[in-house]
Amino acid sequence: MQGNDKLERLKEIDREYRLLSHTAAILHWDQETYMPEAAVLNRADQLSLLSGLMHDRITQPEIGETLTAIGVSLDADPTPRIPDTFQGIERAFLRELARQYRRNSKIPRRVVTELAKQTAIGQRVWAEARKAADFSKFSGQLSIILALVRDVSSCLGYEDHPYDPLLDEFEPWMKTADVEEVFSGLRQGLKQLLDKIRGSRKKVDTDFLNRKYGIDKQRTFGIKVLESLGYDFTRGRLDESAHPFTTTLGSSDVRITTRYDSRYFPTAIFGTIHECGHGLYELGFGKAVQGTLLADGASLGIHESQSRLMENLIGRSYPFWSHYYPQLKALFPESLGDVDLRRFYEGINHVSPSFIRVEADEVTYNLHILLRFGLEKQLIGEDLAVNDLPAAWNAQMKELLGLEPRNDTQGVLQDIHWSGGMVGYFPTYSLGNLYAAQFFNTLIRDIPDWRNQIGRGRFQTILNWLRENIHKHARIYSARELCARVTGEPLNPRYLLDYLAEKFGEIYGF
Amino acid sequence: MQGNDKLERLKEIDREYRLLSHTAAILHWDQETYMPEAAVLNRADQLSLLSGLMHDRITQPEIGETLTAIGVSLDADPTPRIPDTFQGIERAFLRELARQYRRNSKIPRRVVTELAKQTAIGQRVWAEARKAADFSKFSGQLSIILALVRDVSSCLGYEDHPYDPLLDEFEPWMKTADVEEVFSGLRQGLKQLLDKIRGSRKKVDTDFLNRKYGIDKQRTFGIKVLESLGYDFTRGRLDESAHPFTTTLGSSDVRITTRYDSRYFPTAIFGTIHECGHGLYELGFGKAVQGTLLADGASLGIHESQSRLMENLIGRSYPFWSHYYPQLKALFPESLGDVDLRRFYEGINHVSPSFIRVEADEVTYNLHILLRFGLEKQLIGEDLAVNDLPAAWNAQMKELLGLEPRNDTQGVLQDIHWSGGMVGYFPTYSLGNLYAAQFFNTLIRDIPDWRNQIGRGRFQTILNWLRENIHKHARIYSARELCARVTGEPLNPRYLLDYLAEKFGEIYGF
Repeated sequence: MQGNDKLERLKEIDREYRLLSHTAAILHWDQETYMPEAAVLNRADQLSLLSGLMHDRITQPEIGETLTAIGVSLDADPTPRIPDTFQGIERAFLRELARQYRRNSKIPRRVVTELAKQTAIGQRVWAEARKAADFSKFSGQLSIILALVRDVSSCLGYEDHPYDPLLDEFEPWMKTADVEEVFSGLRQGLKQLLDKIRGSRKKVDTDFLNRKYGIDKQRTFGIKVLESLGYDFTRGRLDESAHPFTTTLGSSDVRITTRYDSRYFPTAIFGTIHECGHGLYELGFGKAVQGTLLADGASLGIHESQSRLMENLIGRSYPFWSHYYPQLKALFPESLGDVDLRRFYEGINHVSPSFIRVEADEVTYNLHILLRFGLEKQLIGEDLAVNDLPAAWNAQMKELLGLEPRNDTQGVLQDIHWSGGMVGYFPTYSLGNLYAAQFFNTLIRDIPDWRNQIGRGRFQTILNWLRENIHKHARIYSARELCARVTGEPLNPRYLLDYLAEKFGEIYGF
Repeated sequence: MQGNDKLERLKEIDREYRLLSHTAAILHWDQETYMPEAAVLNRADQLSLLSGLMHDRITQPEIGETLTAIGVSLDADPTPRIPDTFQGIERAFLRELARQYRRNSKIPRRVVTELAKQTAIGQRVWAEARKAADFSKFSGQLSIILALVRDVSSCLGYEDHPYDPLLDEFEPWMKTADVEEVFSGLRQGLKQLLDKIRGSRKKVDTDFLNRKYGIDKQRTFGIKVLESLGYDFTRGRLDESAHPFTTTLGSSDVRITTRYDSRYFPTAIFGTIHECGHGLYELGFGKAVQGTLLADGASLGIHESQSRLMENLIGRSYPFWSHYYPQLKALFPESLGDVDLRRFYEGINHVSPSFIRVEADEVTYNLHILLRFGLEKQLIGEDLAVNDLPAAWNAQMKELLGLEPRNDTQGVLQDIHWSGGMVGYFPTYSLGNLYAAQFFNTLIRDIPDWRNQIGRGRFQTILNWLRENIHKHARIYSARELCARVTGEPLNPRYLLDYLAEKFGEIYGF
């Protein structure tokens, strides 16, 4: 084979791998939305088989041989070394393929298929335990899953902490120590801000959030907002699931889910806008990367930046609601008739420590992440036993947020991630908040008219900016490279802290 | 390997094959129910890949070598010869595996993946042409698909007619000539019966069928009926699609679809009961065959017998509506207030030639099948060009049913089958009607109290009979063997003709 043929062959292998991963995504999507409850073991077997087939493809020796033949050095650390003859997208493709081949080749097929099976079961066991508010119903399955995740960590190997190779799955090229450093600055700043808010005399009214909001009308409103934000329903869908998510089933098939609460409307609308941000990112990948392994977020932190930017910096902003609030009020005259825009804006931005992460305000949200990051490092390092997890969770809640969960559903059972074997995922949520604020800072410099545009419900210029600067690049650049390219500097917690201080200073009067 | 190990290895290969086929079924189900419209090419690529992987598995030389090693003679014709040491389920398993291995090994992988891709595209092209009522928008894609289907036929080989190996896919071990013989008796009998009905002075009122029937209430009623009939919603779902179908996504995941027409209520309810019959069959397969290639209908004709028995012999019977009609009337008092049970029963059983097969009455339905069977034999034998198909269709409609379609949607574009490459499928619908009547004849002999039970909305005894005599055997017996086992004789058109003569003689007074 000529060099070009070799590259084509690698692309062909990757193409089949992507098609299988999209197929698995369809099975996951169906499991969370429409699958009959008794089908869980059928689905576990199917997903287990697919994970094995995917593993076979991404670890086939032909990949390593071909990469070596065209001069890629697989032994170079941490990044594979690629000849200078490959530039641009081809270079990025080889970097990613080498990375995935190296990672996956270290994990035995048995561990991969077993993990797929145990996590498919785990999600059902978790959902039942959550319903019963009883962690003991989940602890056995969680132990099985954590043992497999620890296996993955040791197979991959690490120098500093067993958490490193797990984090690297979601946030490539980032280390646990890097996260700790960023988070320590964040923790300090958030604590100070929260103290200021607590010290404020301002009373924010939130009673109206819990009035009656019919689900059909919430759905109609959500779809309208999605359409304005640029989400294309010929290439996507909005469905319901217990835990909102975005998933890509093909380059023209990116679906989002939300959930509705007829007595608390922020759940659905902010969940919908959040997932819309993820969806727009995936739908905005450039044509050149579609159907390849570069058709992915630069990292999960970058992915989350797109959802957070949409949910918080746009969706919880005053200009946004100056446009949408009259429409919302017209839909729910009985519940919002006596609430003016200012009261509404303050209510949806009310800061108060609470139990549930996904319903937390912008300030305390990150404290939830610090809690999970700390606990999962301990779990993986075997510094914390599964049976001691609920008590450790509750103690941390007390320390970070000053609250004590009344039961496990309000505490340790609230998130789906660990039941899915996703350890190392949580920190990317806060990284997303940080990237979002830093990107937005550049965006509003480039689009001085941004407030006015949002205030008129016009998002096309903002979406074009996101597509051009972030979306179309997909995984061509690493998160670090992308951040520097877009904002001119490395990740810096100052942008989030400045944004929060300004926004909440205005609301709470300091 | 010992003989036992060899059998286990074959079962393991089959197990993976089944898991892949269930995975493909999930993709098909999603395509027909929820997939965003722009995703059609993504889905075509995914299904094409899966069909290739399935083909690789079912044709791998290890199957042939292992079958030969345990004494199965693959050259024996028409049925592979199996040593007498294998009995019962094992014998049936080897028979089916040898059959599928032989069939699939004759078809090149390229033809299989191309057919999967072109039919995934074909279904979208067909749907668009159907919407536009313009066959010329579909003829190009249909020609591509038919050329591939003819390829399949020549690869498989035949002695008498190129239609034989295609029919054999859906109705194993049956020949085109066998179908022709059965159908010629049927055609004669139906013509006589239809003449009698046309000669009757009885006027049946059908106006009320076209009144207003809200879709939500239709859905509620359909679900209630499904539950009474024994359909288990923890192992299934009811959704909507353009063309109703039943599909199996796992041994505990059998889903049905229907469609609603707010101005013609029979569409949804009889479609729902029909698919319920298919669903109950698949859900009733014995534990011993679940997840294997024996977890399938004995043939499509037998499969259709289960849907027709439920839809027609039970669902369109007087006792059935003597139980359900008061409930239906209570749901739609404005549309049914002035209609008594007798008038209702006659209206839903009104016999009159019409354009659309799936809405045809029990008498003329089979004439629709004779038409399609005739045309597709000609298409495959290259005795009819694709461009001449609409004219041939319309001429046959005139001859068999005395009607001339006003446009292609009412004629040649009404069915999804050819767009999916399913040639050889149509005759199984009439075979299903024949088997249904013959099975029912035995069922009512075994359950003398049947009218009374249906009249009280009690279906458990009937379902138990179906499970015990038909469902649990799945594909262990051939259709021919099963028919003889259940009814004591081979397929005989007399049972359907007798049933129709009695039922419609009573309604039309002859």
